[in-house]
Amino acid sequence: MEAQSTGARRGPKPKPDVRDNLLRAGVELFHARGYTATGIKDIVAAAHVPKGSFYNYFDNKETFGTEVIDFFFERRLPKIQALLSNPDAPPLERLRHYFELRIDGSRASGYVRGCLLGNFSLEVADQSPLMRERLAVHFRTWSQLLETCIEEARRTGALTTPLPPSVLARFILNSWEGALLRMRAEKSDRPLNEFMTVVFGTVLV
Amino acid sequence: MEAQSTGARRGPKPKPDVRDNLLRAGVELFHARGYTATGIKDIVAAAHVPKGSFYNYFDNKETFGTEVIDFFFERRLPKIQALLSNPDAPPLERLRHYFELRIDGSRASGYVRGCLLGNFSLEVADQSPLMRERLAVHFRTWSQLLETCIEEARRTGALTTPLPPSVLARFILNSWEGALLRMRAEKSDRPLNEFMTVVFGTVLV
Repeated sequence: MEAQSTGARRGPKPKPDVRDNLLRAGVELFHARGYTATGIKDIVAAAHVPKGSFYNYFDNKETFGTEVIDFFFERRLPKIQALLSNPDAPPLERLRHYFELRIDGSRASGYVRGCLLGNFSLEVADQSPLMRERLAVHFRTWSQLLETCIEEARRTGALTTPLPPSVLARFILNSWEGALLRMRAEKSDRPLNEFMTVVFGTVLV
Repeated sequence: MEAQSTGARRGPKPKPDVRDNLLRAGVELFHARGYTATGIKDIVAAAHVPKGSFYNYFDNKETFGTEVIDFFFERRLPKIQALLSNPDAPPLERLRHYFELRIDGSRASGYVRGCLLGNFSLEVADQSPLMRERLAVHFRTWSQLLETCIEEARRTGALTTPLPPSVLARFILNSWEGALLRMRAEKSDRPLNEFMTVVFGTVLV
């Protein structure tokens, strides 16, 4: 998943929205600046709520971080599911199309931000078992969707590799995270394009 | 490249060492805590030098960061070169051995820290063109060493894939960075082991 502006809504909102506004601001700021560089005061300012309100909804920055991770992934999940289980396209084409759309998104955003799950994996995983656990859960869900496509490709004879679909799915997702990481340092789509070349030219054959 | 303790030396030192002590403390702290979470006061405290000294050697945190990146990579480069150009082993065995040693190192360190170049790629690449440029230079050097091995494997018939060695080398390095990223979130060597399985089972064939 790449950069996507989720900018917090402006102006006063009824109560039920405050929580969502805070989470939306969290996604936006953690994605743009990182977890450590973003303070709770930045979050409440971006969400246009008084600082005290934050603690009505969240215990501390770490529990807020875990909810931001969930909020980010769960809002993207339906689209990933729809793309990867589209019955009108063969499984390898679905996979290819999914990554092509992600590459288009990265190009459109100027190769910044990358994937929030990947960023958190590097920035907070050593310090926070709580956030680490949420990252692991979502990476698992995500790679299982890839795995289902790969299994289907194998069942239909589109894929002949003897490696287990689960191993291939996790490898592809991890490689994708690495390609996004390198995209951000190179500010170019080359790492993403080469990911496509090698994955669809040698791994998924 | 993974975690490696480079702990700053203790006690007063003659002048020529101050610069190196600061860089060594920079590697240690940026690697352990990240760039944003580490202040100049942490660096000078770890290097046991007065805060004012920092500015005798470095203009600001960003130029210090670029020199830390160089210091980190240049101290590891001779070992990478030696492993990847070892004339006593066939090229694919050299590659495999190189990554196996890196995996041993990650296991020994408890799956923390990952690769400083990868961490900086995510944490600072969007903000600092200066640091981004140094990362790009070192990634290029590193992937060229892999490329030379892959070229040699192809020349000697150990490798038959039609993909260009430069593309394969960059893909493998990027995937390795992704595997390290996921290792830190999973706190397990599975992403690294699956990297080996897929790279040596499907990419380098």
